[in-house]
Amino acid sequence: MTEAKKLSLIAFSGDYDKLTAVFTLATGAAAVGYEVNIFFTFWGLDAIKQKTGRSFLGSNWLTKIFGYMMGGLGVTPNSRFNFCGIGPKIFRYLMRKNNVATLEELVDAAKLLGVNLYACEMAMHVLGLRKEDFIPEVKDVLGVATFLELSEGGRTLFI
Amino acid sequence: MTEAKKLSLIAFSGDYDKLTAVFTLATGAAAVGYEVNIFFTFWGLDAIKQKTGRSFLGSNWLTKIFGYMMGGLGVTPNSRFNFCGIGPKIFRYLMRKNNVATLEELVDAAKLLGVNLYACEMAMHVLGLRKEDFIPEVKDVLGVATFLELSEGGRTLFI
Amino acid sequence: MTEAKKLSLIAFSGDYDKLTAVFTLATGAAAVGYEVNIFFTFWGLDAIKQKTGRSFLGSNWLTKIFGYMMGGLGVTPNSRFNFCGIGPKIFRYLMRKNNVATLEELVDAAKLLGVNLYACEMAMHVLGLRKEDFIPEVKDVLGVATFLELSEGGRTLFI
Repeated sequence: MTEAKKLSLIAFSGDYDKLTAVFTLATGAAAVGYEVNIFFTFWGLDAIKQKTGRSFLGSNWLTKIFGYMMGGLGVTPNSRFNFCGIGPKIFRYLMRKNNVATLEELVDAAKLLGVNLYACEMAMHVLGLRKEDFIPEVKDVLGVATFLELSEGGRTLFI
Repeated sequence: MTEAKKLSLIAFSGDYDKLTAVFTLATGAAAVGYEVNIFFTFWGLDAIKQKTGRSFLGSNWLTKIFGYMMGGLGVTPNSRFNFCGIGPKIFRYLMRKNNVATLEELVDAAKLLGVNLYACEMAMHVLGLRKEDFIPEVKDVLGVATFLELSEGGRTLFI
Repeated sequence: MTEAKKLSLIAFSGDYDKLTAVFTLATGAAAVGYEVNIFFTFWGLDAIKQKTGRSFLGSNWLTKIFGYMMGGLGVTPNSRFNFCGIGPKIFRYLMRKNNVATLEELVDAAKLLGVNLYACEMAMHVLGLRKEDFIPEVKDVLGVATFLELSEGGRTLFI
């Protein structure tokens, strides 16, 4: 029980429901005093883009197309029952109706609770993204070694 | 090596193959003396529903439709090679043929081995599910903070 | 901070992007002195097959069909934007272009860095695979209990 109150999440998936899990865990843990780190990589980078809709982010035509297709937080699909994007809309509606925070509200709560947001250097290279493409709350751009170091002594989940 | 013999699994996915991984890890760990906790959330809730087929579970027409589409343990899809539901049937067949426990047998074994089953409060709100919709072995309905507390000092995996 | 420098990965998914995450974490951790264990199960077994293309691996006609469809490392799909197999090709191209190691290069690096590769006994039974079907670097075939033991005291991620 000498475990540090530290929770580190590798947010790989860009699905609406999985990102909801990431931010529910992050805010829930931060609210009870945990230090929380989220390391966004690959499709998970969608969650921290400045532009929440579709836009041609990227350093060349190929990454621009990927950037357009990925989009941002506003257009992430569901991992199941997506129905061409209606699934996440239904989720948002059900969350509001049942007084559960939506993903967008959870992201705001995470910022207020001081959750540390990091972007994965390697995935940014592949997808042609720069630090300026992300929200200002993103603390740093990291590689695996640095992430392993800062998450040491706590729990790490891959989502 | 002073780590507690405790394994906690967050069962997010409702896929047949991923739930098989959840229950293989759970029963394998319980069999060698681990305390095992499974926290079912989102699509993973399929695994602990009383009704294993499709049924209109939910508190309003929208969640009822989701409930019908999700179904229960008997109709979960494969994450890969689902072929409209034939994939899990082939898996069941191959498991029986090769004397590997099927998912349904693993769930029974988990109950016998005293694996602790918990349901996620937030996901139940969103999907309009109540504690009565689940099998009686479900010990409690939890939020993130309580789950973090009871899983402290051991290993936690997100599946 | 008395945590062992040990990272254990359960490689369940056979997707190109998720396997890239597995091997990026594995090589990154091994490079900074971590003991790294990867336990390949289900679709993840694709990564350690001798034949990287499609082949009829399996003990009977049904597992042979699964074996053909799964293929090996050369034909793994993307979890998102697969476009009938073009997605991973674009990824490989973008990785080369941006001087990021491709999945195949990461697998070679993992071997050189002494990452321990293990295959899951149960999944091999279901899919009709034998130890001879895998690359010689695969150290052993394990069950859950042995894996839990050898990964004890470090961090474990399910990918």
